[in-house]
Amino acid sequence: MPLTKISAPKHLPMEKVRALANAVQEARVETCKVPPDDLFQTISRFEADELIMHPSFEGMQRSADACIVEIPLLGGRTDDQKRALYRVACEKAVAVGFRADDLMIALIENSRVDWSLGNGLAYADVAGKA
Amino acid sequence: MPLTKISAPKHLPMEKVRALANAVQEARVETCKVPPDDLFQTISRFEADELIMHPSFEGMQRSADACIVEIPLLGGRTDDQKRALYRVACEKAVAVGFRADDLMIALIENSRVDWSLGNGLAYADVAGKA
Amino acid sequence: MPLTKISAPKHLPMEKVRALANAVQEARVETCKVPPDDLFQTISRFEADELIMHPSFEGMQRSADACIVEIPLLGGRTDDQKRALYRVACEKAVAVGFRADDLMIALIENSRVDWSLGNGLAYADVAGKA
Repeated sequence: MPLTKISAPKHLPMEKVRALANAVQEARVETCKVPPDDLFQTISRFEADELIMHPSFEGMQRSADACIVEIPLLGGRTDDQKRALYRVACEKAVAVGFRADDLMIALIENSRVDWSLGNGLAYADVAGKA
Repeated sequence: MPLTKISAPKHLPMEKVRALANAVQEARVETCKVPPDDLFQTISRFEADELIMHPSFEGMQRSADACIVEIPLLGGRTDDQKRALYRVACEKAVAVGFRADDLMIALIENSRVDWSLGNGLAYADVAGKA
Repeated sequence: MPLTKISAPKHLPMEKVRALANAVQEARVETCKVPPDDLFQTISRFEADELIMHPSFEGMQRSADACIVEIPLLGGRTDDQKRALYRVACEKAVAVGFRADDLMIALIENSRVDWSLGNGLAYADVAGKA
């Protein structure tokens, strides 16, 4: 139950941004024990002066292609699952043409009663019963 | 003190998206004991390939009109208030023409010192004193 | 390690919105003990009917220029640091032409393992080692 929000520069081709979105989803499935169809993503595009990322903070070397992925998600992943998510998402992003320094990820946790998938029901009350 | 962020497909008429925004606000007022003028919302529009929602996860049956509502809000609502919020928001969304499966909601909680309405003051220091 | 997300009306000149972004960043550096190059911001623009802020909730008097700044950030700032952040950000926003009532801020906290700056590594594992 995450919502993966991708902020990408406008100059990137949509197919490359979609490949990044897929990379993050595949990484979640591989590392966080979520089913593949737990898939909710938004892609927002920004002009160069609307997506500001410091080029070298903490030793990074960012290019103009750098993207930010913000993921509100159901809490419960372990620290090691989060580490694996970052590592695998980065590997898969590199495999589709991104530089390893150009993927920033931020997680925001909430709980099962904080989601409603639809039908006016809390996820806490329906999970696994469909 | 919530910020209701609505992500809607571009093909939906603005009046329908605004009706959804109103539905969510009315549901908050009815179920979460917030005053009607505690009203802060953003509406973001997405192309079909920028707003990705699995069509059937957990038994949902989503159409191309499905929207995501993400609400950073002041913590303190009970689980039952959250359940009521989902139920009433969905009922009101249906009343303005949405399908019940087409409204996904995510809540993200914070605390009173995490908001400033303006004037450089924390909400924790001014709430109810205006 | 924050991501400063600025939601601004489309009618505002970009230079004024960038000045607000700089104001918030400078305020963070001055009040929250973060280095100046810890700089990550997005700027999203909204039509008047897409950015809804109640004009007078809790005694505010908002104009059409009002902006919302939402900041997912690493937890650990004290309440007084947050208060100082609001105060100084507001002062600096006023200095670049905003009204004091036209800057709303919301903070959302997470932890060190919830960020990856890049290279597939958790911030918790690399902070200060670059």
